[in-house]
Amino acid sequence: MPRQGVLLVVSGPSGVGKGTVIARMLARLPDVSRSVSCTTRPPRPGEVAGRDYHFVSTDEFRRMREAGELLEWAVVHQDLLYGTPRRPVEEALATGQDIILEIDYQGARSVRQILGERAVLVFIAPPSWGALVERLQGRSTEDAEATSKRLASAIHELAHVEAFEYLIINDDLDAAVDNLQGVLLAERQRLTRLQWRPFVEDLLREAGQ
Amino acid sequence: MPRQGVLLVVSGPSGVGKGTVIARMLARLPDVSRSVSCTTRPPRPGEVAGRDYHFVSTDEFRRMREAGELLEWAVVHQDLLYGTPRRPVEEALATGQDIILEIDYQGARSVRQILGERAVLVFIAPPSWGALVERLQGRSTEDAEATSKRLASAIHELAHVEAFEYLIINDDLDAAVDNLQGVLLAERQRLTRLQWRPFVEDLLREAGQ
Repeated sequence: MPRQGVLLVVSGPSGVGKGTVIARMLARLPDVSRSVSCTTRPPRPGEVAGRDYHFVSTDEFRRMREAGELLEWAVVHQDLLYGTPRRPVEEALATGQDIILEIDYQGARSVRQILGERAVLVFIAPPSWGALVERLQGRSTEDAEATSKRLASAIHELAHVEAFEYLIINDDLDAAVDNLQGVLLAERQRLTRLQWRPFVEDLLREAGQ
Repeated sequence: MPRQGVLLVVSGPSGVGKGTVIARMLARLPDVSRSVSCTTRPPRPGEVAGRDYHFVSTDEFRRMREAGELLEWAVVHQDLLYGTPRRPVEEALATGQDIILEIDYQGARSVRQILGERAVLVFIAPPSWGALVERLQGRSTEDAEATSKRLASAIHELAHVEAFEYLIINDDLDAAVDNLQGVLLAERQRLTRLQWRPFVEDLLREAGQ
């Protein structure tokens, strides 16, 4: 049955493991794809334009933002801009392609405002504050300042759980992946996403009604 | 995190295989239980009162119905009454126990009216009318009249898909079980069912906010 794609928007504090949960789910469901963001930062070695990111100039980014071509955008490290182009997401959803988007709570709110019920908002939370601190401190590549910045922004994220529809506690990784996958499977079967009327009409016609 | 249980109400035409889909899902999720119906029919050999059914007199059934003690009820084979007692379901949901209920579309509508969003309505449909006819005709225990009655009632069921939130096509049994399980997993993570406020408050308190 033809259906609208699901836009799974996943947020949660840095260090909660959402990247891992998403990667595991995508490994199970290869027909779900990530949205390709646009960014003003230069490509890193090995990154492919159009696959990893759309690399654009700051002027072009601003033009897109002002023209309403972004579903959401954010400033990272003070001056780098990242955003989600709107048209490819809408086109994918219209053809039944499911898309996953890993963004912060402000981005999630923006997507919800623009796409309404087409977006499904999932928040991933740590089982405890201590678990989050431990995880962030375990990232040996970062200094104490970076960690405390992440913790400060985690508090902001957690204070906005209310805007989300689903809340998954990442206590056990496998369970968290099962639960995220469950949300996607469920949302695929939602009547509001299915073209169920012609399907049922066909069944009834076949039945001679 | 404490949460409200999910009441999964599953409907669909006779012969669509919903019993098998439910049984397979319950085998995977042993912590989900079936609601025990009350009925005016006499116990069959081997049936245990309170486990298989609550066996009640017609007078008692009518009393329960009039006192609002049933979530839904139906007449089967002209004079046998079957119904779902309300209190055990509400008590189970309040303690976070998930319950599954296999009833017709009228029952599903009644449950939704009484329990609102606490109930999740899932319709299971055949991939085609021909597939349903084939399945029903394959039930060698039934005569042609019984089959044509079931097909007539299947048409009624299908004409009421609109009242449901989820629609699962039982084309491939394993996929249908995955999808029903997905709906249950998703609904367990719904913010409206979780006591998320005290949980988040605890996290923020731990963070020193």
